[in-house]
Amino acid sequence: DFIHALEEVRPAFGVAETELQQCVANGIIKFHYSIERILNDGQLYVDQVRNSARTPLVSVLLHGPVGSGKTALASTIAMTSEFPFIKLISPESMVGFTEQAKMGTISKIFNDAYKSPLSVVVIDSIERLLDWVSIGPRFSNIVLQTLLVLLKKPPPKGHKLLILATTSQKSILEQMELIDAFNSSIYVPNVTAVSSIDTVLRDLGSFDDSQRQEAVRAITTSDYGNKISIGIKKLIYMIEMAAQDIEKVEKLTTTIEEESRK
Amino acid sequence: DFIHALEEVRPAFGVAETELQQCVANGIIKFHYSIERILNDGQLYVDQVRNSARTPLVSVLLHGPVGSGKTALASTIAMTSEFPFIKLISPESMVGFTEQAKMGTISKIFNDAYKSPLSVVVIDSIERLLDWVSIGPRFSNIVLQTLLVLLKKPPPKGHKLLILATTSQKSILEQMELIDAFNSSIYVPNVTAVSSIDTVLRDLGSFDDSQRQEAVRAITTSDYGNKISIGIKKLIYMIEMAAQDIEKVEKLTTTIEEESRK
Amino acid sequence: DFIHALEEVRPAFGVAETELQQCVANGIIKFHYSIERILNDGQLYVDQVRNSARTPLVSVLLHGPVGSGKTALASTIAMTSEFPFIKLISPESMVGFTEQAKMGTISKIFNDAYKSPLSVVVIDSIERLLDWVSIGPRFSNIVLQTLLVLLKKPPPKGHKLLILATTSQKSILEQMELIDAFNSSIYVPNVTAVSSIDTVLRDLGSFDDSQRQEAVRAITTSDYGNKISIGIKKLIYMIEMAAQDIEKVEKLTTTIEEESRK
Amino acid sequence: DFIHALEEVRPAFGVAETELQQCVANGIIKFHYSIERILNDGQLYVDQVRNSARTPLVSVLLHGPVGSGKTALASTIAMTSEFPFIKLISPESMVGFTEQAKMGTISKIFNDAYKSPLSVVVIDSIERLLDWVSIGPRFSNIVLQTLLVLLKKPPPKGHKLLILATTSQKSILEQMELIDAFNSSIYVPNVTAVSSIDTVLRDLGSFDDSQRQEAVRAITTSDYGNKISIGIKKLIYMIEMAAQDIEKVEKLTTTIEEESRK
Amino acid sequence: DFIHALEEVRPAFGVAETELQQCVANGIIKFHYSIERILNDGQLYVDQVRNSARTPLVSVLLHGPVGSGKTALASTIAMTSEFPFIKLISPESMVGFTEQAKMGTISKIFNDAYKSPLSVVVIDSIERLLDWVSIGPRFSNIVLQTLLVLLKKPPPKGHKLLILATTSQKSILEQMELIDAFNSSIYVPNVTAVSSIDTVLRDLGSFDDSQRQEAVRAITTSDYGNKISIGIKKLIYMIEMAAQDIEKVEKLTTTIEEESRK
Amino acid sequence: DFIHALEEVRPAFGVAETELQQCVANGIIKFHYSIERILNDGQLYVDQVRNSARTPLVSVLLHGPVGSGKTALASTIAMTSEFPFIKLISPESMVGFTEQAKMGTISKIFNDAYKSPLSVVVIDSIERLLDWVSIGPRFSNIVLQTLLVLLKKPPPKGHKLLILATTSQKSILEQMELIDAFNSSIYVPNVTAVSSIDTVLRDLGSFDDSQRQEAVRAITTSDYGNKISIGIKKLIYMIEMAAQDIEKVEKLTTTIEEESRK
Ligand SMILES: Nc1ncnc2c1ncn2[C@@H]1O[C@H](COP(=O)(O)OP(=O)(O)OP(=O)(O)O)[C@@H](O)[C@H]1O
Ligand SMILES: Nc1ncnc2c1ncn2[C@@H]1O[C@H](COP(=O)(O)OP(=O)(O)OP(=O)(O)O)[C@@H](O)[C@H]1O
Ligand SMILES: Nc1ncnc2c1ncn2[C@@H]1O[C@H](COP(=O)(O)OP(=O)(O)OP(=O)(O)O)[C@@H](O)[C@H]1O
Ligand SMILES: Nc1ncnc2c1ncn2[C@@H]1O[C@H](COP(=O)(O)OP(=O)(O)OP(=O)(O)O)[C@@H](O)[C@H]1O
Ligand SMILES: Nc1ncnc2c1ncn2[C@@H]1O[C@H](COP(=O)(O)OP(=O)(O)OP(=O)(O)O)[C@@H](O)[C@H]1O
Ligand SMILES: Nc1ncnc2c1ncn2[C@@H]1O[C@H](COP(=O)(O)OP(=O)(O)OP(=O)(O)O)[C@@H](O)[C@H]1O
Ligand SMILES: [Mg+2]
Ligand SMILES: [Mg+2]
Ligand SMILES: [Mg+2]
Ligand SMILES: [Mg+2]
Ligand SMILES: [Mg+2]
Ligand SMILES: [Mg+2]
Repeated sequence: DFIHALEEVRPAFGVAETELQQCVANGIIKFHYSIERILNDGQLYVDQVRNSARTPLVSVLLHGPVGSGKTALASTIAMTSEFPFIKLISPESMVGFTEQAKMGTISKIFNDAYKSPLSVVVIDSIERLLDWVSIGPRFSNIVLQTLLVLLKKPPPKGHKLLILATTSQKSILEQMELIDAFNSSIYVPNVTAVSSIDTVLRDLGSFDDSQRQEAVRAITTSDYGNKISIGIKKLIYMIEMAAQDIEKVEKLTTTIEEESRK
Repeated sequence: DFIHALEEVRPAFGVAETELQQCVANGIIKFHYSIERILNDGQLYVDQVRNSARTPLVSVLLHGPVGSGKTALASTIAMTSEFPFIKLISPESMVGFTEQAKMGTISKIFNDAYKSPLSVVVIDSIERLLDWVSIGPRFSNIVLQTLLVLLKKPPPKGHKLLILATTSQKSILEQMELIDAFNSSIYVPNVTAVSSIDTVLRDLGSFDDSQRQEAVRAITTSDYGNKISIGIKKLIYMIEMAAQDIEKVEKLTTTIEEESRK
Repeated sequence: DFIHALEEVRPAFGVAETELQQCVANGIIKFHYSIERILNDGQLYVDQVRNSARTPLVSVLLHGPVGSGKTALASTIAMTSEFPFIKLISPESMVGFTEQAKMGTISKIFNDAYKSPLSVVVIDSIERLLDWVSIGPRFSNIVLQTLLVLLKKPPPKGHKLLILATTSQKSILEQMELIDAFNSSIYVPNVTAVSSIDTVLRDLGSFDDSQRQEAVRAITTSDYGNKISIGIKKLIYMIEMAAQDIEKVEKLTTTIEEESRK
Repeated sequence: DFIHALEEVRPAFGVAETELQQCVANGIIKFHYSIERILNDGQLYVDQVRNSARTPLVSVLLHGPVGSGKTALASTIAMTSEFPFIKLISPESMVGFTEQAKMGTISKIFNDAYKSPLSVVVIDSIERLLDWVSIGPRFSNIVLQTLLVLLKKPPPKGHKLLILATTSQKSILEQMELIDAFNSSIYVPNVTAVSSIDTVLRDLGSFDDSQRQEAVRAITTSDYGNKISIGIKKLIYMIEMAAQDIEKVEKLTTTIEEESRK
Repeated sequence: DFIHALEEVRPAFGVAETELQQCVANGIIKFHYSIERILNDGQLYVDQVRNSARTPLVSVLLHGPVGSGKTALASTIAMTSEFPFIKLISPESMVGFTEQAKMGTISKIFNDAYKSPLSVVVIDSIERLLDWVSIGPRFSNIVLQTLLVLLKKPPPKGHKLLILATTSQKSILEQMELIDAFNSSIYVPNVTAVSSIDTVLRDLGSFDDSQRQEAVRAITTSDYGNKISIGIKKLIYMIEMAAQDIEKVEKLTTTIEEESRK
Repeated sequence: DFIHALEEVRPAFGVAETELQQCVANGIIKFHYSIERILNDGQLYVDQVRNSARTPLVSVLLHGPVGSGKTALASTIAMTSEFPFIKLISPESMVGFTEQAKMGTISKIFNDAYKSPLSVVVIDSIERLLDWVSIGPRFSNIVLQTLLVLLKKPPPKGHKLLILATTSQKSILEQMELIDAFNSSIYVPNVTAVSSIDTVLRDLGSFDDSQRQEAVRAITTSDYGNKISIGIKKLIYMIEMAAQDIEKVEKLTTTIEEESRK
């Protein structure tokens, strides 16, 4: 772990392009006007950090259900800022780290960010960084306390910092008083409208037009059609599965029905 | 433990044939159509990983009662995939490992899998890997957090990975939010039909035809006949025991009756 | 502890004759037909392991009240198997060991057993091996998890293993799901019949015939005579105490009465 | 951490001017007469320490809601004392410290203070220094016990010490009996009056006179106008955000409304 | 602690005369016939160990209220046995030991005892050896498990061992199932009769005959006279205090009254 | 901590004059006859230890509300004993010690005391020595067990020891069964009578006669006058504060009123 930590602690200045792009592997499909609104809000925070002298530190939390697209959206906002320093803090690059190594990695990235006049730091999946599990409950208080302080600590004079964080466990962050440490929060919703499914199907192109229309019609006229709530991540997965089946349309509608009846 | 860990962490690329075969020591008896369905579903996931570009990571959980055949089925699906990399993560090869050593072993196998273009990893008996015990409750959060991240972390671009896991403690995995990390789940049922017992008896061959028919008739006409629910693993054990007795049929029906009245 | 562990981990192949005999210091008195039944069942398991190809691992739990003779019976079954490898895992030989040292000792004995084609391992007083105490409750999860895996892990191909374990805390083992890991269990009862006391008195020979008859008559006609439930271990202790007294018969009946009124 | 601790433990005598000024980045706006009262009370404690022979140690706690200006006010009182020794104990300079390192840092600053005839020590955000989290709850008892003793330990004969501390978690400090260790406490309130918002708007100058008057009128005539309770820190943030918008007045009133309806 | 442990672990064979005598600093006053009965019972156990071949290990627990004389009586029984090996295990000689050091010390004394053909080991104040405190509750499970095994582990063939233990917390030992590990137990009562106080006063000689009679008369005729329950240890302390006063009799009766009204 | 411990563990024989005097910085004002009674009782215990042969160890607990003068009174009794060995065990000299270091320091002082024929040890603020906090609750069981044994362990033959301890948390000490380990206890009350305030004002001399009489009259005729309960420590602090004000009398009466209404 120590060796892991050392390696991890050495990242140089600059932009974590590749890592962030990997978070948007399937692009951003504008299946609902709320997606555009989220991206606009993101742009607003980017501008505020760049322009305002009185608020050199702005922190925003993207929260919503599992798989609703939080990581992809945060990554997109970060990449479009074009700030000279953009970094991703992700549990996926810290598998098997001790709490101390995680804390060291996080601190190091913030310290690097402080050196740049204009920085964005994306903190992905806070509950996972905290090693959160509801049985106990257990979590890393070392990482939590580090975040509680770093989210409020202003960068050195003249420097500016935007923090974008994601979580699917907002209520736990409230209990931890982590929410109070953020300036703002944005809700990232599930796919709920049949028209959104239509847009996603069109965008992915795995169904031809008549199949898509048949599927959309079937869902619209079904009794579960108004109870749909599926993360975009899972929806893409379901469509891809169904696309492998001979009975694409039926497979898709059955899977969506099962999911909606849970 | 450190030495254990080191040794364990060195496995080379390739296929864990012997280990997987040992998990199907008594073969797969098709005592019920659900067995065939499970194997077909398994094949489907194998195909999806091989074919789909949008879902390079597919994870499936096999869950069901103790001894229902989960490990044997997961091993069979893995072996029939004929992927170039097939590995088994099993508590039996980690007796006495510390949490850290377990975590290291698991990470190592995943890292090896990432290097192969097409891989299957079987994670056997998750509750045991987690050192779960309901008194407390206690478990290894280090191993849990590692699994929570690895189950969602995609392999490098162009590479593909199928994860097959087994558990007899689904509800605990739900509390740990491990279920959310899987794409799908398959239920592996107990033997419940008298016709299934008939098939198993025939397949094992320890009873001659008249003994088998006598046993089946006795169970069918009994009052516990419709309350039978026995894992295939235990059923084989019971038949083997009864086969040692002079009164084979009576011994078997008595044991099944006792088990069914519990 | 480390040094302890090392020494303990070096036991060679073979049979732990002396240790096992010490567990049957006062012999096996056949005070009730259930004793014979237990020994017969034990012989059956020994035969099954020797003969059956499909069940190379058989594990049996002897459970019952404190002092009912579990250790003596398990030791007797093990010794009469005449398998080339017979070993005792006992808390008495691990006083002051750390959990790790206990776990190492247990693993070592199993690894030795795997090397013999035919082995018996006696695991005595599981609750004590687990450092169980109901206040807390506290216990060694390291030892528990080791047992949970070892009880289900088959020996290498062609090798066979019989595991005999004892406990006076069956309900706790149920909570720990350790019971599920055993193939079978045998109940070892207390002495409850006056005729059993008669047999024990006769066998020990510390009372002459008239004293014995007087004692048996007194207990039979008493009002506590049908509430007796005493472990054979304690009964032998009581008889020995009474034998030191001038008023042997009265001392014995008084002590049995006190015990029965608790 | 050890290296951190060593570095931290070496601060020389003197005044932590820069650090303290950074805590009052946006000045002290006298938006309400209570602000003046707090500063006067602070001056009184400064005088008492300087003059009284019988009370060489005076400790005061500034408590109030998150963002109400506690740190800025404590820093201001400390700086205006013009004592030869003024130091800030802040969680922001101890990110990632172990409990031991925190405790060492705190002790070192107090030991330095004891060497000066006249000292002020500002202990900022006690709950953060204690690594407090309500889940569990968890906190550093090492740091707590250190504070419990240091808050009552008089400086050496002839020396004098003023301790100013801040917290937004008074009730937790009560449970910890930390409150009993303070001689006095001062409440720092939120902004609640519309006239206060008017003063802040005027002071910041981001709105022109007509915009300010429009905003004030809108809030005054609204139904949430009498339910406002916002920390000065958040209010400045809101005004700065709104100032970036084309519809400054509406943006500000909307944000204040949302906050007030929570 | 390690050095402590080493020193402690080196005690040679033999008899701990001085230590045991110090436990009976004020002698054994026979203030009630139960004292004689306890000593006789003790002698009986000594004889049984010496004579009986079937019970080479006898363990007895002396329990009763704080200060009732348990340690003095156990020490007296041990000393009068005149066995070649007599040792005291006492918390007073292990101040500041770690659990491990305590466990090592205890094991060492038992191992020494096993080497003597005839031994007595006194385990004083078990709850203190266990570091028991009801808040939590907390205790040393390492020491507990060591005692649980040592209390049941027979000495080597041909050797014999008497264990005498004391506690004022019998109910806790029951919860820990430590009681089950003892063969017998003896209750040591408080002083409750006025005639007992009379005997103690006469024996100590700090009051002259008329003072003693006056005190006894006063208590006899008082309304608290039938509610007295004082440990012999405290009674001696009270008499000594009163003896320092000018008004001996009044001081004594007042103190006894206060104690009895609690 | 180790170095701290070593230094601390080296104190030579003798009397801790300076430290003890510092605990009585503002003298002992005899504001109530109970103060004299406490000092007389203290003298009695000193005499008893010096004279009685049967009670070589006497331990007394001074308990009462926060700031009622416990430490000052215990220090005064210790100093007036004029025993050759007088030492103070205080949390203030152990800031930042580990439990082990605290335990070592305490043991060392007792071992030094045992070497003197006549000793007094003052154990100040037991709850702080135990690192007690009610959240959890948490405390050092190592220090607790050390005190539980040391409070009952007699000094070597011919040597004598008086232990004076203080606490403001008697009920917690009861739960820990620490109270049972003391021979006696003394209650140290708050200032409750207006006449006591009069005496304190007169003694301190910060108010002139007419101011004092005015204050006393105001309190006497007020409605909170019969609800006053203030520790002498806090009362001195309040008088000193008021003395700095232009309106001395009003400031004092207001502060006393506020305190009494809590
Ligand atoms: N409108 C959209 N918003 C977000 N993601 C989208 C959108 N359209 C398509 N996607 C794709 O959907 C996936 C969203 O997955 P992502 O990992 O961002 O979800 P998540 O909410 O972070 O999941 P989790 O809760 O597991 O962390 C990505 O592959 C992304 O490319
Ligand atoms: N249809 C079947 N499905 C699964 N296993 C079968 C089947 N027919 C026979 N078997 C045999 O039954 C045994 C099943 O045991 P397996 O270890 O897979 O059960 P399990 O559910 O994993 O048990 P556990 O809950 O203890 O982990 C194997 O020996 C296997 O060869
Ligand atoms: N029929 C019998 N069954 C078992 N033990 C017997 C029998 N007859 C005599 N004994 C003697 O009784 C004693 C039984 O003690 P043993 O230690 O086996 O009891 P246990 O149930 O294991 O006790 P514990 O619950 O304390 O572990 C032995 O000394 C054994 O020689
Ligand atoms: N009257 C005022 N009182 C305090 N701060 C003011 C005042 N007017 C303007 N400010 C500014 O408001 C901000 C107050 O923030 P500060 O950090 O002191 O709040 P806080 O209560 O300590 O917050 P937290 O609860 O997060 O610790 C500072 O930037 C300060 O310059
Ligand atoms: N009959 C008696 N029985 C026991 N002790 C007696 C008797 N008569 C006088 N004593 C004296 O009384 C004291 C008893 O104290 P002892 O330490 O044995 O009590 P204890 O019950 O062990 O106390 P604790 O509960 O604190 O361990 C000893 O000094 C002993 O010499
Ligand atoms: N009669 C008195 N009794 C005790 N202290 C007095 C008395 N008169 C004046 N004093 C002064 O009052 C102060 C009492 O403080 P002290 O520290 O002894 O209180 P305490 O009860 O130990 O407080 P805490 O509960 O915080 O430990 C001392 O400065 C002492 O000189
Ligand atoms: Mg995400
Ligand atoms: Mg399995
Ligand atoms: Mg046994
Ligand atoms: Mg602050
Ligand atoms: Mg005792
Ligand atoms: Mg004090």
